[in-house]
This record gives sequence, structure tokens and C-alpha cells, in this order.
Amino acid sequence: MKVIADICIVPIGVGVSLSEYIAACEEILDRDGLKVDLHAYGTNVEGEWRLVMDALRLCHEKVHAMGAPRISTTVKLGTRSDRDQTMRDKVESVQKRLQDLQS
Amino acid sequence: MKVIADICIVPIGVGVSLSEYIAACEEILDRDGLKVDLHAYGTNVEGEWRLVMDALRLCHEKVHAMGAPRISTTVKLGTRSDRDQTMRDKVESVQKRLQDLQS
Amino acid sequence: MKVIADICIVPIGVGVSLSEYIAACEEILDRDGLKVDLHAYGTNVEGEWRLVMDALRLCHEKVHAMGAPRISTTVKLGTRSDRDQTMRDKVESVQKRLQDLQS
Amino acid sequence: MKVIADICIVPIGVGVSLSEYIAACEEILDRDGLKVDLHAYGTNVEGEWRLVMDALRLCHEKVHAMGAPRISTTVKLGTRSDRDQTMRDKVESVQKRLQDLQS
Repeated sequence: MKVIADICIVPIGVGVSLSEYIAACEEILDRDGLKVDLHAYGTNVEGEWRLVMDALRLCHEKVHAMGAPRISTTVKLGTRSDRDQTMRDKVESVQKRLQDLQS
Repeated sequence: MKVIADICIVPIGVGVSLSEYIAACEEILDRDGLKVDLHAYGTNVEGEWRLVMDALRLCHEKVHAMGAPRISTTVKLGTRSDRDQTMRDKVESVQKRLQDLQS
Repeated sequence: MKVIADICIVPIGVGVSLSEYIAACEEILDRDGLKVDLHAYGTNVEGEWRLVMDALRLCHEKVHAMGAPRISTTVKLGTRSDRDQTMRDKVESVQKRLQDLQS
Repeated sequence: MKVIADICIVPIGVGVSLSEYIAACEEILDRDGLKVDLHAYGTNVEGEWRLVMDALRLCHEKVHAMGAPRISTTVKLGTRSDRDQTMRDKVESVQKRLQDLQS
């Protein structure tokens, strides 16, 4: 089962600067078989469900190992059984509608 | 690694009444090793990371099998390396503070 | 417009114990016109959109005033134009389906 | 109070193709005073809290007016009292860390 996910990992108890932890997670998510796209409030990830979930678990383990005693993560998970859809498809589909609206 | 999760599964393309799908997921989540607590906008789940994630995957597979072509799920995942904490601990901790505030 | 919301406020930069901040928000959310229900990973809130949003803003202002330099909040917002639905309706609807499944 | 938000609006009861509704919301969010950035699982929005919240409400009203009887939206809201931070700052901060990790 393929999934398009949006992952936002928030380490708690390590002060206000979180970029060091997020970068470590980016390295983990950017693995063979996954497409990733960092944005200002999380990271889009596309790939096989198990690969995405394994990477997510590794992120939690890594952030704890880096010293964060507590983590609160928000994840969105989109799956479809009707057809294949990529992250790029989703964005382009909305952008095309926007052009129609504005023309 | 233990996790306290909050899972909100939204089947798309099956009309506005979703309770049939949510109930099927409740059955899946309420398995050995997991504690569940249904609320008005999701379900709290407590247990081993792998058990929670396996159950979540089974939910997606079940909801697709029931006829939903598309699913968008929002999950919150809380892990701690400093100490063990249950769902009940979290609620009681806030309620105790509230009593202090109001006394 | 009525909304059923689920609000999870995470103060950042104040250590790992967050219950003091959450309790202060519970006090703010539990106001005239809103129904609230605390669970292990957030708070369900039901009421008029503007009342809910005003309360949410007051929560952020309060948590900053209590000393948190940074806050990351996750909110789910459910609205319906087809019919009125309460938090209790939503839970009972799923529980009734569960009973049907298990009988 | 400035906020960086991530907004994901899911219309329910209108079939599986949602891009028409998302595009209409993009038009609403892309207003004076707000910076927006569409990604594959939502839209980042940066601006004054009240402007963002007013736009979000207009999105719900618009999507209902377009025929969706039910909407479930997930929003993340980040505020800071310690310093000003833009969406671009957040992404660049992580990218800089990534370069350090990989050099």
C-alpha cells in the first residue's frame, strides 16, 4: 500500500531551536524508495507504507538518542485504492484548477 | 518503544456518514496489548509502537476493503524516553493542575 | 457556523512537563457557550466558530504570558451544513455501530 | 500575534476529487497580508493570526457553499514570542543543518 504522508516532529524539552533534530530526521526520511519534500511546517513523504513507517520510527529513536526526552509528532496519511497518485500530481491538480479559476 | 497516539481516520468518497467505518477501526484498534479511548474527534491509543502502527495499517486496509477509495488520516504520536506515562496519567495530571488553579 | 474542534497545544522551550500550561488553557476553553472534553491527547471543544477561535487565541496568548517562547498547536475542525451534530452524537453514533458489529 | 500555519481542508460527501475545493481555498488564502505555499498535503500560511483565521473561516464557508455538506480540517499553528520567524527562515534553518550534517 502506497502512502503520501506529511510528518511534523516536535522534540520537547530541548529548548526552542529544533532545526538540528529536524535535519537529522530529514536524513533518515530521505532514503531509497521514499520521495521527500521539506516545507515550513513538516515534510511530505511518498512511498510504501512500511518504508514510511519504519523511517518515522527511526526518526523518533534518533531524536530521543540526540537527547530529547519527549516527542510529539503530527502525521497525516493519505492512501488511495482507486488509482495511483504522486505528491506532484496532487500539487499540479490544484494548480491547474487555480489557473482555470483565474483565467 | 511505547507510544500514546491519537488517530482520526477520514474515509473519502463514501458520503457523509462515517460511523460505520470508524466502528470497524475501533474493533481493530481494541486488540490485546492496546488501550483505546474513543472521543468525539478520534481515538486515543496506548501501546507498543509496532502494535499501534500495525493496527493503523489494518484500519486503512479494512476501510478500503469496505469501499472507501480514499482515506485521509491524522495521527498524533507521543513518545517519551525519560519515564513511562499512561493516557490516564496525562489526563489526571491536567485535572490535578485544574483543581489547584480553581481552589 | 458551529464547529467541533480538537485542540492540542504544545508549549516549546519550557521543559517536558506541560500540564500546567494545558490546565491554564482548559480554564480558558471552559467558558460560556463552549462544551469541552479533555482527553489524553487534546481537548474536544464544541461551539460557535468565533467563540472557539477566540478562546484558542487566548490560549496562545496565555501560554506565551506564562513563559513559553514558542507554541506548536494542532487543531482539527469539523463543520457541517447538512445537519446539527454534537460531540455526544458523534461518539454515540460510533458506539451504536460497534454494538451492531459485536451482536 | 503572527502565526505560521499549515492548513489541510478535507471536504466530505463530494466524492474523491477534491482539487476544485482546494483551489477555491487557495484563492481565499492568497490575500493581502498573507504568504502562502501550497504543498502536497496542505498549505503553509504566514501572517497575522486574525487574518489567517478569518481566511480559514471563509474557506469553510466557501467549501460548504460549493456543495460540501461536511468538512474536516487539520491545522497546525506555530507562534513565537521570542523572535520573528518566517516560513523561509524555518526551511533555510533546517537546510543549513542538513548541509552541515552532510559535509
